[in-house]
Amino acid sequence: MRRWNGWGDSAVEYGLHADALAFLRARVGEGARVEDAGFEAVCAAAPPSRLPSFGSVDRTPQTRVLNALGQSLPDWLRLRYGDIGPVPDGVAFPESDGEVRVLLDFARSVDAIVIPHGGGTSVAGHLAVPAGERPVLSINLTRMRALLNLDRQSQLATFGAGVYGPDLEAQLRAHGYTLGHFPQSFEYSTLGGWIVTRSSGQQSLRYGRIEQMYAGGRVQTPRGALAIPTFPASAAGTDLRELVLGSEGRIGILTEATVRVSRLPEREAFHAVFFPNWDAAEAAVRELAQARLPLSMLRLSNALETVTMLTLAGHARLIGLLERYLVLRGCGEGKCMLMFGFSGTHSDYRHAVRAALRISRARGGVHVGTRMGEKWKQNRFRTVYLRNAAWEQGYAIDTVETAVDWPRVKPMMQAVEQAAVAAFAQYGERVHTYTHLSHLYAQGASVYTTFVFRLAGRYEVDLARWRTLKAAVSQAIVAQGGTISHQHGVGSDHAPYLAAEKGEAGVAALRALFAHFDPDGRMNPGKLVQP
Amino acid sequence: MRRWNGWGDSAVEYGLHADALAFLRARVGEGARVEDAGFEAVCAAAPPSRLPSFGSVDRTPQTRVLNALGQSLPDWLRLRYGDIGPVPDGVAFPESDGEVRVLLDFARSVDAIVIPHGGGTSVAGHLAVPAGERPVLSINLTRMRALLNLDRQSQLATFGAGVYGPDLEAQLRAHGYTLGHFPQSFEYSTLGGWIVTRSSGQQSLRYGRIEQMYAGGRVQTPRGALAIPTFPASAAGTDLRELVLGSEGRIGILTEATVRVSRLPEREAFHAVFFPNWDAAEAAVRELAQARLPLSMLRLSNALETVTMLTLAGHARLIGLLERYLVLRGCGEGKCMLMFGFSGTHSDYRHAVRAALRISRARGGVHVGTRMGEKWKQNRFRTVYLRNAAWEQGYAIDTVETAVDWPRVKPMMQAVEQAAVAAFAQYGERVHTYTHLSHLYAQGASVYTTFVFRLAGRYEVDLARWRTLKAAVSQAIVAQGGTISHQHGVGSDHAPYLAAEKGEAGVAALRALFAHFDPDGRMNPGKLVQP
Repeated sequence: MRRWNGWGDSAVEYGLHADALAFLRARVGEGARVEDAGFEAVCAAAPPSRLPSFGSVDRTPQTRVLNALGQSLPDWLRLRYGDIGPVPDGVAFPESDGEVRVLLDFARSVDAIVIPHGGGTSVAGHLAVPAGERPVLSINLTRMRALLNLDRQSQLATFGAGVYGPDLEAQLRAHGYTLGHFPQSFEYSTLGGWIVTRSSGQQSLRYGRIEQMYAGGRVQTPRGALAIPTFPASAAGTDLRELVLGSEGRIGILTEATVRVSRLPEREAFHAVFFPNWDAAEAAVRELAQARLPLSMLRLSNALETVTMLTLAGHARLIGLLERYLVLRGCGEGKCMLMFGFSGTHSDYRHAVRAALRISRARGGVHVGTRMGEKWKQNRFRTVYLRNAAWEQGYAIDTVETAVDWPRVKPMMQAVEQAAVAAFAQYGERVHTYTHLSHLYAQGASVYTTFVFRLAGRYEVDLARWRTLKAAVSQAIVAQGGTISHQHGVGSDHAPYLAAEKGEAGVAALRALFAHFDPDGRMNPGKLVQP
Repeated sequence: MRRWNGWGDSAVEYGLHADALAFLRARVGEGARVEDAGFEAVCAAAPPSRLPSFGSVDRTPQTRVLNALGQSLPDWLRLRYGDIGPVPDGVAFPESDGEVRVLLDFARSVDAIVIPHGGGTSVAGHLAVPAGERPVLSINLTRMRALLNLDRQSQLATFGAGVYGPDLEAQLRAHGYTLGHFPQSFEYSTLGGWIVTRSSGQQSLRYGRIEQMYAGGRVQTPRGALAIPTFPASAAGTDLRELVLGSEGRIGILTEATVRVSRLPEREAFHAVFFPNWDAAEAAVRELAQARLPLSMLRLSNALETVTMLTLAGHARLIGLLERYLVLRGCGEGKCMLMFGFSGTHSDYRHAVRAALRISRARGGVHVGTRMGEKWKQNRFRTVYLRNAAWEQGYAIDTVETAVDWPRVKPMMQAVEQAAVAAFAQYGERVHTYTHLSHLYAQGASVYTTFVFRLAGRYEVDLARWRTLKAAVSQAIVAQGGTISHQHGVGSDHAPYLAAEKGEAGVAALRALFAHFDPDGRMNPGKLVQP
């Protein structure tokens, strides 16, 4: 069963072993364990629904609480401390495009705000329920999960937009296909959610970002349906898909999406290479990205992330052996780990790995084979469960991510980490912070930074500290010329920083666009673009 | 010097040799030679300018006539027959973003319509001057041509938007880079024009469409400047670049553009492969496109285009030898020629060519080496000069193009060709029509059809015939589910068919967007989206 106040399935435990815990304590001190609020107590505190009865709209407090929040750290604080704030007045579970239409018409008839709900994995406040007079209807799309059409010749698959990642892949796999979109939230995020937040998966180097996969489909807007046909490419004016991508519910609800799929790869492998230091590693990945090799993934950890990953891996003796070997090969303190992935044909595999290792070696890279990569692959959707284990030990984990052109990659990494350290120093606290480049482009890279810090054990204090952290790192991102999000979207948490990259003229254009589709300001107001 | 009433430089002749002419006569009959109108006579007929004197705005009839039209067939008819229709009231040649701003403010002050002018190579009526009361200012951007910045690490180059293709490539080549965008109009089209019409070049398989190259820049709109910063990727809501791409002047004027460039390739080659028939060839190119090989180009001619190209090539004896060899290898009547291109490293070259030939052979493909490809490469920007030579012999050449998912590629090709034949049959005329797939995608292909027919020798008759043709083939494209343009844009000629693919809801959204940026309907009105 899915956890109501944490990540993932309650049957899955991904614990912190003793060495990892000791490492963490040494870095930030002993955590404060919080006694979690109970589900029933939280539900009992939910205010009565302001929506009239309609069809199968669920107005029970349980369902409303379960659909109230996402997975951001402030969302967690609310759930764990039991201070949940506004919840939707009802939750609908439509099973078709037509039912979504009916629900939008109902929302208009009672002047309700509508919040589309996919997998509920947002880490940017996309699902936040605004306080105010208008009732709030959450439309949960996860019953719209069928593979509606598969065009094998064109490699196009049409799904209900609420399909979860594993369900989508299973339905495709039965026919010999894959979408190849694997964000870390994969287990619980949905196709529609990926599209409206411009998601990027771990193997985007081969399969592309969701922008490249999304070929067309249907959107129900307050103004009526938008049907977007599929073309391989078009020069006919503005691409309507681009009005849907990243729209975060503001123009309507994505009900069906056609995506570009691929045949299942003959071979998949993940290799690890260590570099003596950051500068050598960064030069190597830049060259790898610009060489356009048929790799599926490049993921470069900085020195502290490398240490952290090796420590978390357990197997201290084996890791010790590896580290002694690496020292002999020139990779001692300050070493950085690169993971590169391949997905494709046997013949492309040989070519790509040979070329990748040639480029790596020229920068001092030491190849250690595929064993660590296999381990990483096995755990790639499980490491996020660490948030649960850390919380139970009194620690919070949060992340931010951006993307920036190459000359600013290293300054960005340093600025974000330093901003976090300074933010916690104000409270006399330490933060364990480390970074990786998760998506590599010829032009630059995404910069993904993790923060681990101990809880204070009081809702207001922890929320205040998070706000300080979030503001500090967001300001650092903006100051260094990065986008406020490379893969998580804007939601409410990043909305204050949007104008820095879009400009006032850009934000005004988005407002005009949203007002066109949604003249009553009904669709997920306050997200993406602030009023 | 550039031809005022035809394609390209007047010093370049690309003639029809006797065999080619005989071939054409056999297919469609003897052409009617037209006596071209003289430049000075056309200028003398231009009405007086309705614009007041302003800065260096050029109001001479000569400059106004030279900036009045593009390169579509109806544009040619107007120029050649001397029935030129409305011309702009003045032409400005700004040299900076700031000067464009001043010109837009001037246009507002006199309530003028503004038509941005790049290289004047539109084949879809993007430059048509509307009849009406408002004066019309053409803003010719070709003096904004400098390389303003080159970021080698991120492989980003910023240019003035009016830079011509060869100038852009020469400036990049001096630093060891290429953009790799080679539309057939390359010699006279501009970077800004490519972006606002969503152009696609011959080597898009490697370098991408202009959409993938365009990284940011500046746009001057009636509402002020839109400055779009560069990021390798972003999930921060709607991508503002997408509001500029394909906007065809409707939201403002692109003044500076930053594009993603590549290092000059170590090796470039074009191979020819013949297939016994269309179905085998189509299956092969579909497989090639879906194999994601590092090729730069795939271009498949249907049987009649193959015959036409072989005939136009001259060298009858050599071609005869080739054809006898091909017959022995199973490629007789109905054979189809594939040209595939490579651009990249030596190591990628071996890998890509080996894989491409393996896939081709499995479908009966006969590889004939790189000699025909070299010839094609030499002439790739010269074949368009055939329009001049054909006109002089009394023939017109026109093309249409679309893109469609794989199951509809062959039906589309047949429908477009048949629609053209039927259109001319109404006039008791024949048309020589043939097709190639110019851009190949995993999802489908562009379908590019050429029409050669003889002139009637009277403006009204030839214009009426063209209108019949254009309507017939456009309706066929729409009926077969294709986009109204894969690479030429919409302009005025394709605008009536836009709603078929965008839907009324989509067109309404575009109208709202344009009205936001351009509340007075000043920017290139009537293009892309009809009033």
